[in-house]
Amino acid sequence: MPLAIDPLLVPLPADRPVVERAARIPAGFVAAGTRAGIKASGRQDFALVAAEGDPVPATAVLTNNRLAAAPVRLSRANLQATGGTGATAGYAKAVIATSGSANAATGPAGDADQATIGEAVAEALGTTPEHVLHLSTGVIGLRLPVAKVTAEVVRVAAGGLEATDEALAAAAVSLRTTDSTTKMASVRVALPAASGAGMVDVTVTGIAKGVGMIHPKMATMLAIVLTDATASPAALRDLLRAASATTWNQLSVDADTSTNDSVFLLASGAAGAGSVDDDPAARSVLAAALEAVARDLARQQARDGEGATALITCQVSGAVDDADARAVARAVISSSLVKAAVHGKDPNWGRIAGAAGNAVVPEAYLLEAAGLPPSEAAARAGQPAAVDPAMLRIAIAGHLAYDGAAGGPTGIDKAAAREAMAAEEVLIRLDLGLGTGAGEAFGCPLTEGYVKENSEYTT
Amino acid sequence: MPLAIDPLLVPLPADRPVVERAARIPAGFVAAGTRAGIKASGRQDFALVAAEGDPVPATAVLTNNRLAAAPVRLSRANLQATGGTGATAGYAKAVIATSGSANAATGPAGDADQATIGEAVAEALGTTPEHVLHLSTGVIGLRLPVAKVTAEVVRVAAGGLEATDEALAAAAVSLRTTDSTTKMASVRVALPAASGAGMVDVTVTGIAKGVGMIHPKMATMLAIVLTDATASPAALRDLLRAASATTWNQLSVDADTSTNDSVFLLASGAAGAGSVDDDPAARSVLAAALEAVARDLARQQARDGEGATALITCQVSGAVDDADARAVARAVISSSLVKAAVHGKDPNWGRIAGAAGNAVVPEAYLLEAAGLPPSEAAARAGQPAAVDPAMLRIAIAGHLAYDGAAGGPTGIDKAAAREAMAAEEVLIRLDLGLGTGAGEAFGCPLTEGYVKENSEYTT
Repeated sequence: MPLAIDPLLVPLPADRPVVERAARIPAGFVAAGTRAGIKASGRQDFALVAAEGDPVPATAVLTNNRLAAAPVRLSRANLQATGGTGATAGYAKAVIATSGSANAATGPAGDADQATIGEAVAEALGTTPEHVLHLSTGVIGLRLPVAKVTAEVVRVAAGGLEATDEALAAAAVSLRTTDSTTKMASVRVALPAASGAGMVDVTVTGIAKGVGMIHPKMATMLAIVLTDATASPAALRDLLRAASATTWNQLSVDADTSTNDSVFLLASGAAGAGSVDDDPAARSVLAAALEAVARDLARQQARDGEGATALITCQVSGAVDDADARAVARAVISSSLVKAAVHGKDPNWGRIAGAAGNAVVPEAYLLEAAGLPPSEAAARAGQPAAVDPAMLRIAIAGHLAYDGAAGGPTGIDKAAAREAMAAEEVLIRLDLGLGTGAGEAFGCPLTEGYVKENSEYTT
Repeated sequence: MPLAIDPLLVPLPADRPVVERAARIPAGFVAAGTRAGIKASGRQDFALVAAEGDPVPATAVLTNNRLAAAPVRLSRANLQATGGTGATAGYAKAVIATSGSANAATGPAGDADQATIGEAVAEALGTTPEHVLHLSTGVIGLRLPVAKVTAEVVRVAAGGLEATDEALAAAAVSLRTTDSTTKMASVRVALPAASGAGMVDVTVTGIAKGVGMIHPKMATMLAIVLTDATASPAALRDLLRAASATTWNQLSVDADTSTNDSVFLLASGAAGAGSVDDDPAARSVLAAALEAVARDLARQQARDGEGATALITCQVSGAVDDADARAVARAVISSSLVKAAVHGKDPNWGRIAGAAGNAVVPEAYLLEAAGLPPSEAAARAGQPAAVDPAMLRIAIAGHLAYDGAAGGPTGIDKAAAREAMAAEEVLIRLDLGLGTGAGEAFGCPLTEGYVKENSEYTT
């Protein structure tokens, strides 16, 4: 007779593609990561990723912050211009990324700086400025050293771009600010060949950065995802929005939404696969690959949150629907008190219960991105998630702490739970007992290190 | 010629009644603060406040947390029962407050415990259990030691209740958990006498606690406000909701909304003033007195936030309307990055700009409480606040840091700003340049002390 294990004590089962934490460059792209001299430290601060041939289908999800940085606004305008549909989905030849200055809240001068950089990239790569996408990260309110950046554009375009994994990994290094790790994730899946004969291997690879000011709202921290699959701009947009909804949108380091959040997705079509636009089965496979890459990068970002000593994963089952489950998971990993308790290896389930009871379903546009019809999204937005203390169950690191149907507190073995919480990843599992909705979210402990790092940043 | 001072560099002008930080007990009430033995430390943990005669008009604003504690749910039911209108406004004879256990997430046993305590209070004071209101604070998931509490009820009711300022101050002490200060505020105003001849002095006095898990949503941390003014339950409810909307609802220590947030308002009518129900001018005076008490208590709570070393006040002018102004102010004082920067005396205006750009107008019920018509509240809820980087201005501790219309960053004198930020209160002033809406919010720095205190709480 098999041992009966309460499913609440283990992670939610999932059938996901295997993710490799490496920068496997998809066919049809070249990349470089170098130093332009933006950072006083002399560390890498410049990345250029480009399609080998003509501009390719591209899309982005970008921060909703009203003070969106110059590179965010320019990228949105460019994708709208090249797509011609008004949506943030069009065509791109290259993505230029700089770190050290966010070029946010820099006024008209900051916009002019970013435009100058775009013109330099276009000229060096033989394209037009509308086909250049822009990423930046760093201190808000600081101007970019434009001449240093354009000089590096010229130098890199003249011979620095390579179609190698090492080059894409170097680009990932250039995205880093206070990141302690380089964030890369890659998935390989088989899709039907465009020729109709057999299958071809398709690669989806993402590189990202992220340590603080992380509480994405549909947008994310900086990430670039490349694939050699074939898809239209509109299909890419839907795929990226859906993947972000369950991964980056469920990530929080400090509940601060950045002015520079951007994730780009470019598809070269160079693997020779048929377009996923016309093949729902292939589209599902690509969607799963993209979600797996985004999820793994989000987990790397949470684990490397400023001052973080562990990854906190909250998985919620039994919600009325997935939107409620995600709202509850996100409320738990966003709670300063829960985060501090995990730092102290304190199985303080009361704070988890308190945070869950405070969960609010987010804005309508986020619900739509996650797949809800507009009318339902409008009705649900801003509503408290359904949580009933009499049905709720909570487990921390494999230890059942609260069981509403059994009278509430279970008398958790604190010493055993403390020991289990000393792991690299702390799993908080909730079952709401109300339906079949499920979801997850990713966060990190709140530590003295976070406070120290962020009280000494610019001065 | 007078020196021209930019109004952005000083606090918003305001004409508020003078607040005394003392527990001036209004006529018609008695109080006691003692030890029931709930806290292992032996500190005060029991308070009883009662009307001298029959039950008096009373109201409450209570947490919206889905895991509202047993005392919160019982108080709501009692006010609904005695008011008979379905609203949380009725009549009360007494408020019993305990600290050490929150009696939240304690299941049916916790509800039974609180009911037993209510019956003991009713019997001891010669009233019915529906006329007793309940407050509790402390660890979530811990049962109350009922026998100790009911024994103390009997002891205090038999001779411990006094109509003195000292007795009410002792009740305030009993509300404390990790509070480093006792929080009291009192305002005296003149209202027309009920007899029609001349004016009488009316007192509004509040006592409160609050250090962590503070991010009230219409509800607040624990507070009891007493007045000897005359008003109906319905008028009291409107007055308390409006005062909370601009004060406690604009307070955040750590963005965690508690399971136990409760503020009660009782009006004895013992000052001999005419009812404010029939006198709009008198009602305005009472509203201002109540708001001043609530605002001062909220500021005391923010200043004494866990680990806090200062009070952060954010005042916003020039918003499209007051709802937007309050949303922006609240976003700024809730930002972990802004809070950490203030801790480090870092005039990091970029983080303030980033937080302002991320402000979202809250849930519809909060907007209604603040005075918006239901249809307008529904349309505004969950919408981003209007912030235009080209019109925005930001000043920190009297130093202009960003002026959108003048190109953005002003080149703030960081050394001078750092020095100004070493004060007990750090004022962050924003002008949005879009309209005449104004609002404020109160918070505290994020410090290593907060992390330390909350990673070592229950274990």
